[in-house]
Amino acid sequence: MVTRTVDLRSDTVTKPTETMRAAMATADVDDDVLCHDPTALRLETEMARITGKEAALFVPSGTMGNLISVLVHCDIRGSEVVLGNNSHIHIYENGGISTIGGVHPRTVKNNEDGTMDIDLIEAAIRDPRWALVFPITRLICLENTHANSGGKCLSVEYTDQVGELAKKHGLKLHIDGARIFNASVALGIPVHRLLQAADSASICLSKGLGAPVGSVIVGSNSFIAKAKILRKTLGGGMRQVGILCAAAIVAVQENVAKLEGDHKNAKVLAGRVRIVLHHQISESDVQYTLSCFQQALTGVLDQNGI
Amino acid sequence: MVTRTVDLRSDTVTKPTETMRAAMATADVDDDVLCHDPTALRLETEMARITGKEAALFVPSGTMGNLISVLVHCDIRGSEVVLGNNSHIHIYENGGISTIGGVHPRTVKNNEDGTMDIDLIEAAIRDPRWALVFPITRLICLENTHANSGGKCLSVEYTDQVGELAKKHGLKLHIDGARIFNASVALGIPVHRLLQAADSASICLSKGLGAPVGSVIVGSNSFIAKAKILRKTLGGGMRQVGILCAAAIVAVQENVAKLEGDHKNAKVLAGRVRIVLHHQISESDVQYTLSCFQQALTGVLDQNGI
Amino acid sequence: MVTRTVDLRSDTVTKPTETMRAAMATADVDDDVLCHDPTALRLETEMARITGKEAALFVPSGTMGNLISVLVHCDIRGSEVVLGNNSHIHIYENGGISTIGGVHPRTVKNNEDGTMDIDLIEAAIRDPRWALVFPITRLICLENTHANSGGKCLSVEYTDQVGELAKKHGLKLHIDGARIFNASVALGIPVHRLLQAADSASICLSKGLGAPVGSVIVGSNSFIAKAKILRKTLGGGMRQVGILCAAAIVAVQENVAKLEGDHKNAKVLAGRVRIVLHHQISESDVQYTLSCFQQALTGVLDQNGI
Amino acid sequence: MVTRTVDLRSDTVTKPTETMRAAMATADVDDDVLCHDPTALRLETEMARITGKEAALFVPSGTMGNLISVLVHCDIRGSEVVLGNNSHIHIYENGGISTIGGVHPRTVKNNEDGTMDIDLIEAAIRDPRWALVFPITRLICLENTHANSGGKCLSVEYTDQVGELAKKHGLKLHIDGARIFNASVALGIPVHRLLQAADSASICLSKGLGAPVGSVIVGSNSFIAKAKILRKTLGGGMRQVGILCAAAIVAVQENVAKLEGDHKNAKVLAGRVRIVLHHQISESDVQYTLSCFQQALTGVLDQNGI
Repeated sequence: MVTRTVDLRSDTVTKPTETMRAAMATADVDDDVLCHDPTALRLETEMARITGKEAALFVPSGTMGNLISVLVHCDIRGSEVVLGNNSHIHIYENGGISTIGGVHPRTVKNNEDGTMDIDLIEAAIRDPRWALVFPITRLICLENTHANSGGKCLSVEYTDQVGELAKKHGLKLHIDGARIFNASVALGIPVHRLLQAADSASICLSKGLGAPVGSVIVGSNSFIAKAKILRKTLGGGMRQVGILCAAAIVAVQENVAKLEGDHKNAKVLAGRVRIVLHHQISESDVQYTLSCFQQALTGVLDQNGI
Repeated sequence: MVTRTVDLRSDTVTKPTETMRAAMATADVDDDVLCHDPTALRLETEMARITGKEAALFVPSGTMGNLISVLVHCDIRGSEVVLGNNSHIHIYENGGISTIGGVHPRTVKNNEDGTMDIDLIEAAIRDPRWALVFPITRLICLENTHANSGGKCLSVEYTDQVGELAKKHGLKLHIDGARIFNASVALGIPVHRLLQAADSASICLSKGLGAPVGSVIVGSNSFIAKAKILRKTLGGGMRQVGILCAAAIVAVQENVAKLEGDHKNAKVLAGRVRIVLHHQISESDVQYTLSCFQQALTGVLDQNGI
Repeated sequence: MVTRTVDLRSDTVTKPTETMRAAMATADVDDDVLCHDPTALRLETEMARITGKEAALFVPSGTMGNLISVLVHCDIRGSEVVLGNNSHIHIYENGGISTIGGVHPRTVKNNEDGTMDIDLIEAAIRDPRWALVFPITRLICLENTHANSGGKCLSVEYTDQVGELAKKHGLKLHIDGARIFNASVALGIPVHRLLQAADSASICLSKGLGAPVGSVIVGSNSFIAKAKILRKTLGGGMRQVGILCAAAIVAVQENVAKLEGDHKNAKVLAGRVRIVLHHQISESDVQYTLSCFQQALTGVLDQNGI
Repeated sequence: MVTRTVDLRSDTVTKPTETMRAAMATADVDDDVLCHDPTALRLETEMARITGKEAALFVPSGTMGNLISVLVHCDIRGSEVVLGNNSHIHIYENGGISTIGGVHPRTVKNNEDGTMDIDLIEAAIRDPRWALVFPITRLICLENTHANSGGKCLSVEYTDQVGELAKKHGLKLHIDGARIFNASVALGIPVHRLLQAADSASICLSKGLGAPVGSVIVGSNSFIAKAKILRKTLGGGMRQVGILCAAAIVAVQENVAKLEGDHKNAKVLAGRVRIVLHHQISESDVQYTLSCFQQALTGVLDQNGI
């Protein structure tokens, strides 16, 4: 009998498939800092298409994707971003938007489903007539799926509403879509529709999709032009990066289809874990444990053939 | 019959008394950037004594006082400060701690009395073992009186509790004491006791005390030594500043005693305004209006002889 | 016989005259943070007129004047300023434009007369087509008089040339005119002409003019509007600042005329000191000593009645 | 007859060898953000050994390697770095140390051989007693080989001298050793000896060594611990990065030995190019062209079998 260990710490521990490894081994590469790597360009073109945006840019991590996006939208000293008090950017990214970028965060309470009440978002937007004492709000950030809520999906309706609010106040909308493909599969709505209201998004190709490294940010041509400069400044410009992009192309082509199965597996396992756990720990602890498992299961189980 | 207009927009509109003007006209001054202005030194010595701290420093404004204090405690890149979501520093100081200082703010809900729940503060403090993804919490800020709560005073007990929490986690405690003299008079507790748990405080000598310009920050000798450098960097080092300090000395000597009368006058007026208003607007609006009046009345009425 | 000590450490040690003290004692003041202080407005109007600019703003120090000016012109992350390697901003202002403002300095060699060669300035301007690896040059700074060159004056011709270069490359020109009144008197050219090519200037009213505290920055209406916000952010917004502005008005009205005498006195004294010194120390040390004396004598002697 | 085109734009365009591709295809990987990627750890252990330092860290680019190193050494607000006016960090890295890190650069003239005169470096170090107006010098940066001087090597003696100067003043020494392996081969001195005086170094594994992506920074355990946090903050923490590290290990194992041949090829080609060029363009242009070629040839020729 064969025993197989499934690593459920996080969906960040996914490993590249054989197809990815083969793609990396034969990838056509060039110097991407000079904007000539054909495989990087191919991935970026494909991601722009999938997300319905003008352009895309490969970055080494989701943290850099979010950092660049916030900093490009808030490129003028004295900017403020409105974001969830329980969002990944606010909680888990070292406060980099302030400590590296000098952007002031204004938090709004995240509901249990990862949303923030529209009226609370609006109340947090600064009145520009009070610029003498207020920073200037320039950006709203959403997160879909919302990690700290156990991976809840934001609906198209909600995202559109926030998009309208942003437009009304002349603000930009960025979506931290690290797991937007999971949201797309779970909601049965294409990624480009989920991101329609967004001026930019950061999307992870590692995690559930299983590419070894990297995220992509998407937006308008002018957004990506500025992002490219900032990526270089931060040190995220990489030379023959087509190696990594080759695996990422496979991830997008082959693994999105597997997410549905992952979600199903995660639910089955979650159900069994719940039975084991619910006599011993409180309901909220169960919820938390399950959400961790759920994230962890995404992508992992699939590759392990469960 | 003489009609007198009382300016109740804010206690920031107070004007210097005749005694202050006389003191300014005859002040003994020298170059304070070279640390030789005798009147500045006299004010700083007196404020250190009143607040029970080792040293004090005159600064052009309360905003600079808070900015310097936060930045000195958070002098290492990657620092976070825990402060009230309704605090003056977070709401009304342009986000300067981030946009100028690169400090990441983590907010805790302010209760109606200006406090934050101790357990919420503790929950907001980052676990330094997770420095890989967290900023490092280095500072807690309180505000006494708490402006956005209508000028509520923080008790000694509460402040001491927060001070103990800060010590337990190796953090510093800064008190934005713009109106700490009002708190002292209202509570009947000396300023030094209210600030005992604090590593630093910023105290306004304008507002209710009526000096034309300036605040003082207080703390340890090493804190003030660093603050002096940062004051120069920000452009707050002023040459023959003894002119302003002379008025501030008068403010501390003569006007603290008048605050009790101000508070009484404010309450009387507030009561009358409440009668006028309470049929027309909601209770919370009345509260807000009163708190504005209350702040505005402080110091102003007195000087106008009401 | 009466002995009088003349303090020659620096022209920063000048003390306010009796006229200034009287003006301060009777100044009409209001809350200048709310933009209502009539004396501040009067000074700012007068300084705009003298300098031929649309607007002016009183700030607590020359350091803040320069810091605000550089940061307003370089308000977008990724900006670079071209300035003298021996300029006051680069050497004596704590590196605040970088450490507080995130602006990257590119230095050009200062000649002995305080100028920088025009072709070297042009060579230092970054080609915006290389924004992928270069910061974006947005500003050139000059200094007139140039302190570290012993107070040398920049000619109108030179300043105009640099102004044309700036325009050609779409850059702004800021002049650190801490002692621009000295330059004006020494060259026999009105201040507004010396600043004609500049988009902004910082001018000290303390130092040789003897006001106790403060500088003024001048520029377009939109420049000053942004400067006012940044002054507040940095903590340089002061309440009843008309007290200081009243003295500054006197400084401008009465003391500019005395500068010519100061310069004459400085030269006489410098000549005598040279005789004393030149056998004992090297020629370059003599030059340095004299330049220190020359600066120090400005304004000081006058007020001491020499 | 077969024609082969050799790409001589830069040594950044080198492409991974077959051995590297094979190594990437079979690399053992895990989540390196969680510090568990075995291949990354193997590369870092090997690089620490080669450089004689306690620890090493893989980063996505040389720009990030330098940025992290400067920011770790200058982690306190108000820091200044002394570096060459013609150094890569100052000229080609977007001014990121200021615009992202708030570090103030003080430049010293680079000689034609890439050195800076020791006495000029010493003169640029700020006297900490003048911290009231000076930033605090915390770091000196050297560059070996020095790119803008045409790839000149710094000698051990020179580097040691600068190291002693740094120690004398309590400063750190960072070496931008993007092409330190080239220097090592050209001088016949092991890398660890060239870096002996340095507290940290950034070393490129792409460029002449031909790995597709990445650099390594080396230093003490405490330096690397801080660097790891900052790498995450900047977004340089990558998940299954062992893929890239596998190629980098091959680069170090197999391609260092080829550098000598590259240098020889470069000289031969340079000689021929010189003959072609020297009648048409100025001597300095020839020098510049040659240096570009020299850099470009490194590693490239080898892989193309010339």
